[in-house]
Amino acid sequence: MNQAIIGALDIGGTKMAAILANADGPLVRITQPTVKNGSITALADQAVALLHAACERAGVDRTMLTRVGVASCGPFVCVDGMLGIAPPNICGGHSGSPDLPNDWTIIPLEKVLREHFETVAIENDCVTALVAERTFGAAIDVPDCVYVTWSTGIGFGLCVDGRILRGKQGNAGHAGHMLMSPDSNAVCGCGNRGDLEGLISGRNLGNRVGQATADVFQAAANGEPLARTVATEAAEWFGRGLYNVAATLDTSLFVVGGSVWEHHADWLAPIVREQVVSRLPALTQGVTIVTAALGRLVADVGALALVMPNEWIPRWRETSPWRTLA
Amino acid sequence: MNQAIIGALDIGGTKMAAILANADGPLVRITQPTVKNGSITALADQAVALLHAACERAGVDRTMLTRVGVASCGPFVCVDGMLGIAPPNICGGHSGSPDLPNDWTIIPLEKVLREHFETVAIENDCVTALVAERTFGAAIDVPDCVYVTWSTGIGFGLCVDGRILRGKQGNAGHAGHMLMSPDSNAVCGCGNRGDLEGLISGRNLGNRVGQATADVFQAAANGEPLARTVATEAAEWFGRGLYNVAATLDTSLFVVGGSVWEHHADWLAPIVREQVVSRLPALTQGVTIVTAALGRLVADVGALALVMPNEWIPRWRETSPWRTLA
Repeated sequence: MNQAIIGALDIGGTKMAAILANADGPLVRITQPTVKNGSITALADQAVALLHAACERAGVDRTMLTRVGVASCGPFVCVDGMLGIAPPNICGGHSGSPDLPNDWTIIPLEKVLREHFETVAIENDCVTALVAERTFGAAIDVPDCVYVTWSTGIGFGLCVDGRILRGKQGNAGHAGHMLMSPDSNAVCGCGNRGDLEGLISGRNLGNRVGQATADVFQAAANGEPLARTVATEAAEWFGRGLYNVAATLDTSLFVVGGSVWEHHADWLAPIVREQVVSRLPALTQGVTIVTAALGRLVADVGALALVMPNEWIPRWRETSPWRTLA
Repeated sequence: MNQAIIGALDIGGTKMAAILANADGPLVRITQPTVKNGSITALADQAVALLHAACERAGVDRTMLTRVGVASCGPFVCVDGMLGIAPPNICGGHSGSPDLPNDWTIIPLEKVLREHFETVAIENDCVTALVAERTFGAAIDVPDCVYVTWSTGIGFGLCVDGRILRGKQGNAGHAGHMLMSPDSNAVCGCGNRGDLEGLISGRNLGNRVGQATADVFQAAANGEPLARTVATEAAEWFGRGLYNVAATLDTSLFVVGGSVWEHHADWLAPIVREQVVSRLPALTQGVTIVTAALGRLVADVGALALVMPNEWIPRWRETSPWRTLA
């Protein structure tokens, strides 16, 4: 009975979404700009209120909602055995940046949610994306697979031997911050020089060439030579990053999402693939690189999948009810 | 009763060792140069014969030996659900090198061993080292830990969330072949340019500077300025490699072995540590780097630990009976 309704949150630096679903599919999805001021629990309180507002919108008694899955930006910090979040683009206590009017360093997300909901599962948004692709998308029944997003940032969700990797505080998958070219002058938001995200993420690539990253890739797709050189080089770095992960984890499948990939997979994929399979054949032979099946809904669907009763899954696979969220 | 004796093999490119043990500790250890000619099963046949010879030496009926753990050089290739090994320094079928008088490409190790023993567990030698350190050494009860050897090559054994990573064919941990500086002219035996092993492994560093690697590090330890520069740079690369693994897996503990580290950990450790903890503090704060506790016995003890009855472990922890192998 208490599994008749499940909830999900997608917490990002700009906006927050709350979704309710039952066995047939999503019932409602509402969003708000992410709160960035007030007390240290303000963001978590907002998340609870947004889920309760979703209950009201769907005509569901809020006491029915006991299971909540969360896709959140990270990094996570474990405090007293519960996950807090410490995203540099939300918590002003790290940088004192004037657009972050708060002194938060760690938001006690799990602690607050557990005061209201019996079951709470929080994962990094790339991990929930991986859960979504493993449950409903391009990686069903693949034990050694990796989700990677090439977007504003570069993030990974990792699965080895059929188990999703979490790490000591739930931060496994920050391979976007792998050093790839430490002598490079490409600086990442985290302060690294020459990490993968610093070299090619939407934010950093655009800043470095003085043009929106989307425009660079569009110009490259149109055959503009200078843009083509920049984009090809970026795809090569991305491929080397995937190779590094494959060499480390003996991966068989990469599922790629994010705005850069979604728009340009057709011509980027062969460049990326070549960088992976041209090295260490015992590990890379037969490695497959495919586009994420769930597109922009991937984090939401993954957050739902974290707390979804197993018996819902076959029906959802058949009917793809998440499409109503689009 | 059939757990009263266990066996282990340590299969390397130069020599092979067979060990027998009972609940009190190792009984016998014998070694032979690794066979590199004959039929495709010659090496696996040698392994069986060496275990049987060990039985004879120890006065044990060979039918008593049903459980065998194996530490082997890789990479592994899965054939019909069983592990074969394809080490480039044993199988002549890859390179046609004149010092490898065989045309082997994949040695059917598991298949042959299973014809003689009921329980066979085969792992990469860095994975067995990790198992040894997790069972008896420096990583007991640490869920997110990594073993890494800095020796002739650079190899890793990975553990996340309390589980050892294997990957699609048991090759997880080849992070020594991560690209760290793709524009470098440091070429690895695998053909990569600027991977970690190409940059700093015993074999490659020595070749590049035209001097035995051990001598370079000894001269550096003695304060010889040029050697000190080379060794410090190598330690920085090693630290960046550990950082990359920590960023990918959210590791809390690195256990380091191998001849380079064993002789020079005292002054290398601070250089390595600085490269790890100076980046991405949410993941690297508090990461610990320690020296492997089991030294040269690590692969042998790990191979035994792969098939050891759990009830032997407390006693072995108390008495460290593997020291008789040294």
